[in-house]
Amino acid sequence: MRHNFGAGPCILPQEVFKQASQAVLDFKDGLSILEISHRTPEFEAVVSEMVSLVKELLNVPSGYSVLLLQGGASMQFAMVPMNLLPEGKSAAYLDTGVWANKAIKEVKNFGTANVVASSKDSNYSFIPKNFEVPVDSAYFHYTSNNTIYGTELFDLPEVNVPVVCDMSSDIMSRPIDVSKYDLIYAGAQKNIGPAGLTIVIVKDEILGKTGRSIPSMLDYRLHIEGGSMYNTPPVFSIYTAMLNLRWLRSKGGVAEMEKENIAKARALYTEIDRNSLFKGACAVEDRSRMNVCFVMENPELEKPFLKYADENGFEGLKGHRSVGGFRASMYNALPITSVHALVELMQSFEEKYK
Amino acid sequence: MRHNFGAGPCILPQEVFKQASQAVLDFKDGLSILEISHRTPEFEAVVSEMVSLVKELLNVPSGYSVLLLQGGASMQFAMVPMNLLPEGKSAAYLDTGVWANKAIKEVKNFGTANVVASSKDSNYSFIPKNFEVPVDSAYFHYTSNNTIYGTELFDLPEVNVPVVCDMSSDIMSRPIDVSKYDLIYAGAQKNIGPAGLTIVIVKDEILGKTGRSIPSMLDYRLHIEGGSMYNTPPVFSIYTAMLNLRWLRSKGGVAEMEKENIAKARALYTEIDRNSLFKGACAVEDRSRMNVCFVMENPELEKPFLKYADENGFEGLKGHRSVGGFRASMYNALPITSVHALVELMQSFEEKYK
Repeated sequence: MRHNFGAGPCILPQEVFKQASQAVLDFKDGLSILEISHRTPEFEAVVSEMVSLVKELLNVPSGYSVLLLQGGASMQFAMVPMNLLPEGKSAAYLDTGVWANKAIKEVKNFGTANVVASSKDSNYSFIPKNFEVPVDSAYFHYTSNNTIYGTELFDLPEVNVPVVCDMSSDIMSRPIDVSKYDLIYAGAQKNIGPAGLTIVIVKDEILGKTGRSIPSMLDYRLHIEGGSMYNTPPVFSIYTAMLNLRWLRSKGGVAEMEKENIAKARALYTEIDRNSLFKGACAVEDRSRMNVCFVMENPELEKPFLKYADENGFEGLKGHRSVGGFRASMYNALPITSVHALVELMQSFEEKYK
Repeated sequence: MRHNFGAGPCILPQEVFKQASQAVLDFKDGLSILEISHRTPEFEAVVSEMVSLVKELLNVPSGYSVLLLQGGASMQFAMVPMNLLPEGKSAAYLDTGVWANKAIKEVKNFGTANVVASSKDSNYSFIPKNFEVPVDSAYFHYTSNNTIYGTELFDLPEVNVPVVCDMSSDIMSRPIDVSKYDLIYAGAQKNIGPAGLTIVIVKDEILGKTGRSIPSMLDYRLHIEGGSMYNTPPVFSIYTAMLNLRWLRSKGGVAEMEKENIAKARALYTEIDRNSLFKGACAVEDRSRMNVCFVMENPELEKPFLKYADENGFEGLKGHRSVGGFRASMYNALPITSVHALVELMQSFEEKYK
């Protein structure tokens, strides 16, 4: 048994893998989920259940649409300004890392990105606070969790403009108040399902106000009209995501997940702070529950620790090159037993090297 | 055992389903294909093999790039003019059906679509011939196979401008001379693999000439630079497509597939023409090998035949609403034994009702 701490595309529950694997062989009457038309009643039921599960789990209010799209957060970086930013207007962006930065760069084709705060000079080791968002901004955009740096923004900053949030790496990990957002997007490949699917939750009334002519596939309104079936959707990714959200609901939903995720994060951060060999990589108050980034007091021990981890069945612990050290990604499906195993590994490593 | 004549997402070989199903459980060291990073050497090898297989099977010349994208042909309808049509210029389009039409509509955001010929007035029951493509067209665009109407264009029309082709529903069904095209695109969900993947084959030198600023995810050049890993790719769809192309190669490649597809088409069209109850839905010279559209001399027998087909294990034979009758889609993975079974079904139905 391996402990999968990879940053994504990432761990899903074993029972979801089993059900998805079975559906590849036989979804309905001996036909594979891969060979059925997306227009069959059986698959339309999958799409419908998937959308209902997102609405139920995140308590999505009426007036919002849930869309199942393709292209990942990277496509949303362009679709958001294309659909929400009138020509020549400005949108406010919070710069908390590589992904926020990529989102900022895509604005230039449609208007201006006003970077209201950035922690770039500190290699994004904290989340900027106390910034001002001009009231004439078309919207305020931020990234709720920064996978590379291990920072997370739990409370929506107080702003007086529409809010857009890239929740790719922490959606479904805790309750959120959707009514405070105008648009939420997330690549599926962390807590939702396999890669190849993107979730968008959008307040209907904010659309269609830019005056811009938008290519069909990039226009949220056409996907709303088409019930996320404007064109052939990523059938298997949607089906597997639906299985995963069923699992999530059976575990008590996002409130229960949050308790688990708090417990997992506490267990690991406590050990990082206690262990004489390790230290956290970012500001304590901004520590992510999803991606725990840590380094060693003595960098020369990093390679031996990675080797030791690999020998003991730990997967995906190497940190991103821009931070170094280690990154333990602890998405919903990672059992707390894997976190305890990692803590024990760090303790036994300390015994050997302290 | 069911015979899957569905139009897509469609039948793939049973051994591909088995291998894909197994990889969902265990791709590497007990980890699912759904939970590994796309940056692992193991998955990078999958992408590399997939690209090599496309190049080998279609004999792609040097100077062309093979891209693995998302969004289906529908996204290409916009990406093609965005990347190839300079502002205010005109591109020539051949209107052979719904998909060609959708492609035509997406041009308006970038320039002008000049429809050089259309069979719309005949409900697209034939492929227009002897049309002129103005030499100042930025490119000529056509759809090689029309799933809804059952027509296929086997020989590239003679034109003196760059050629772009939507081969979504007949790519890999026969050899093509890639050197005659500047850009080929195809949603994967017919002969390539599961839905959620799009293949683009593009001549590198035609890119970057519009002067237009293009959002990153919609710029072919960034995907070429990123080796189709500019962002998280649709991992499972790529893996399964790679398995399917391995199968295709093991069967003798696209030349062998063409022989099979000709034999399958001949068997079914011969029966349609012979059987007193049925008749073909489109021009004989333009009959598709992939999607065989046919109707009944007496439309009142259509429902009984569909019921009879369903009772005997035939899937997906109902024709598209815009043509009516029946559509037998016969992609690479459909065994000729299924076609023979359908012929027998039509014969026994004739015995009952003639």
